[in-house]
Amino acid sequence: MNQIDKKFEKLGTDHAPGQEVRQSGITSEAYLRGETLPGTPVDFSHGDVNDDAFSPTPGALEEFVEGVHRGGPQAYTEYRGGAELRERVADKLAEFTGRPVSGAKELIITPGTQGALFLALGATATAGDKVAIVRPDYFANRKLVEFLGAEVVPVRMDHLAHTESAGLDREGLEAAFKSGVKTFLFSNPNNPAGVIYSPAEIARIAELANRYGVTVIVDQLYSRMLFRGQVYTHLRASSIDADQVVTIMGPSKTESLSGYRLGVAIGAAHLIDRMEKLQTIVSLRAPGYSQAVLRTWFAEDPKWLQDRIAKHEAIRDDLLKVLHTVAGLTARTPQAGSYLFPRLPALGVSLHSFVLALRVQAGVTVTPGTEFSPDATDCIRLNFSQNHEAAVQAIERTVQLIERYRS
Amino acid sequence: MNQIDKKFEKLGTDHAPGQEVRQSGITSEAYLRGETLPGTPVDFSHGDVNDDAFSPTPGALEEFVEGVHRGGPQAYTEYRGGAELRERVADKLAEFTGRPVSGAKELIITPGTQGALFLALGATATAGDKVAIVRPDYFANRKLVEFLGAEVVPVRMDHLAHTESAGLDREGLEAAFKSGVKTFLFSNPNNPAGVIYSPAEIARIAELANRYGVTVIVDQLYSRMLFRGQVYTHLRASSIDADQVVTIMGPSKTESLSGYRLGVAIGAAHLIDRMEKLQTIVSLRAPGYSQAVLRTWFAEDPKWLQDRIAKHEAIRDDLLKVLHTVAGLTARTPQAGSYLFPRLPALGVSLHSFVLALRVQAGVTVTPGTEFSPDATDCIRLNFSQNHEAAVQAIERTVQLIERYRS
Repeated sequence: MNQIDKKFEKLGTDHAPGQEVRQSGITSEAYLRGETLPGTPVDFSHGDVNDDAFSPTPGALEEFVEGVHRGGPQAYTEYRGGAELRERVADKLAEFTGRPVSGAKELIITPGTQGALFLALGATATAGDKVAIVRPDYFANRKLVEFLGAEVVPVRMDHLAHTESAGLDREGLEAAFKSGVKTFLFSNPNNPAGVIYSPAEIARIAELANRYGVTVIVDQLYSRMLFRGQVYTHLRASSIDADQVVTIMGPSKTESLSGYRLGVAIGAAHLIDRMEKLQTIVSLRAPGYSQAVLRTWFAEDPKWLQDRIAKHEAIRDDLLKVLHTVAGLTARTPQAGSYLFPRLPALGVSLHSFVLALRVQAGVTVTPGTEFSPDATDCIRLNFSQNHEAAVQAIERTVQLIERYRS
Repeated sequence: MNQIDKKFEKLGTDHAPGQEVRQSGITSEAYLRGETLPGTPVDFSHGDVNDDAFSPTPGALEEFVEGVHRGGPQAYTEYRGGAELRERVADKLAEFTGRPVSGAKELIITPGTQGALFLALGATATAGDKVAIVRPDYFANRKLVEFLGAEVVPVRMDHLAHTESAGLDREGLEAAFKSGVKTFLFSNPNNPAGVIYSPAEIARIAELANRYGVTVIVDQLYSRMLFRGQVYTHLRASSIDADQVVTIMGPSKTESLSGYRLGVAIGAAHLIDRMEKLQTIVSLRAPGYSQAVLRTWFAEDPKWLQDRIAKHEAIRDDLLKVLHTVAGLTARTPQAGSYLFPRLPALGVSLHSFVLALRVQAGVTVTPGTEFSPDATDCIRLNFSQNHEAAVQAIERTVQLIERYRS
């Protein structure tokens, strides 16, 4: 196998969220237990963007249409995004994160937050560099590092053993930084676990980043969806050297604007410059017309936003109630975002077989934990941004199947 | 300077089309000659997408809005694009290119053709590989190769010395392939020169690719905009081994749908698989709602398309008439697309200084030839997909400035 074959061999996407339809069918159904369970199919691999689940921000489509009518200047923005819009978004994000942002120099609009992640990592790490990533964390982080030819240095996060913090292995983080890591990439709130890093954890990350000269990329995609009583600490407003941090945000989750593919990164000007250079060759720019939709961002009716968060919290609580009836299942209550990441009791089949049975027999699509950490062989991730009733029924079916497949 | 600093040093974008506003102002105006010329500013760095120039395909916005109303399934497609849409587009492209396409296996929808180019090159070349690219050709090709850590092997194309072919250096191409090139990337029609590769040139490329086992990526972005009497040869319908070719298309030029950011690549299933793996980490998918706009593609009213091409041809002819009044200027008549790439007479200032003077003194933005070939120090590229009258007047001002700055 030559070099490029090996590279792509590692980039498997068979179990990536949203790609389930590309899996080949069950070659042997011998392992399936019992009959199919009727009910509305629910795809927990991503949030549902529909009127009976969660719709895009009111006014988003209208802004898009106005953008189309503006024509050329909206279609062909600077590669980093339209100048006026960047100023507007910079002001909003400065207020949100608690530290100034220059729209001219410190912000780039990207095609989705995935685009922003790629650009940020590509701007800070190259072949042979060491990059620290958390386990578990967003499924593509590992692949990004591998594609660039860099080396993954994993840092553990044991969210199930903690309640007052995310559970980051602080000694492990320092050991990683000491070993020569150049970039540390993590999501906060954590995807898949829905936990928030405590103020002490963020302070520690900042302190270590400064001490060891590590650039930190923090994916804050879910940082607006905070449930009652939660405190969120923005890394960029901590003691971290402003030259060493890139913050990634986007309107695709809380705001359900994913279909427009928009992401935003803010950070040190020299890193944003590099990200733009890279964007030039990877995708040129975020969709011109879609950029107009960012005019609705952080300008939503506060009641609409509160209501949206409250609805997610209610779904979370109802799903947890059902999950907690399963003996041997462990689930920490998510503090933010729309993910549940329960650890299942011991099963008599492999995790991937169970996930496939769940889809085939119960119409329930979930993402296996192994997408987020090679150790998470007994976890599944569910995005509960769904129709409330359908989600509860789907979890009831899931529980039935867990009982069927127990070891 | 460390490794990543060097990498980004090479990825300069200061003179890239559309990025002119980011250039710092003139530090010394001492070299400027004469007064400012009044007139409607024209930005020839890209086509103008406006009602008084060229609007998006009729019905495009309506398809987008319907896509938004379809909700989740349109927002979250497979990473390679929605399945039904891929079948539809595959059928159209099979008919257009003269060879079958499997929508399930041989097609991917990307965020713009830039995205498709990056994925195609990333799927076929890695660090240390040799990649042949044409000079002159699309400005990002060289940067793509460099970002991947691969090596550029240039192949000359002397379009000004030929009329019956693009002017590819066929011996140079074979020498490049012999030297161990793994991938050959070229645009046809050529961007920036607007010339079409002859049937003999395409046959030669196919023959050499087969003989030396080279994968060929052909960027056919402008292949629908063919002017009267022109013949176009699709590489994928030639004798080339189907496993060794990726064809890139998109609706952003002839159809003026650039603001939606859509590209399409068709090719061997194993290469499309890799491209999807790479898309997963670079941008996840083409904008979900925008994908719906592809439903209008190759389904336009034939009269609308003919009229659009005729209008471009008329602008081309009028601009050439003005340019041909300049002593010492050489311009080959474009056979397709919307680019002019004239060679200017000797000037008394550098090309970049002239380009800047043109923008500052005449409100005319063009792209310096050096973006397309390091040798093209006396060429400028103009995208003439503009308002007809404004474009002619802008070229008249350009001619005045050429006279002012002659050496």
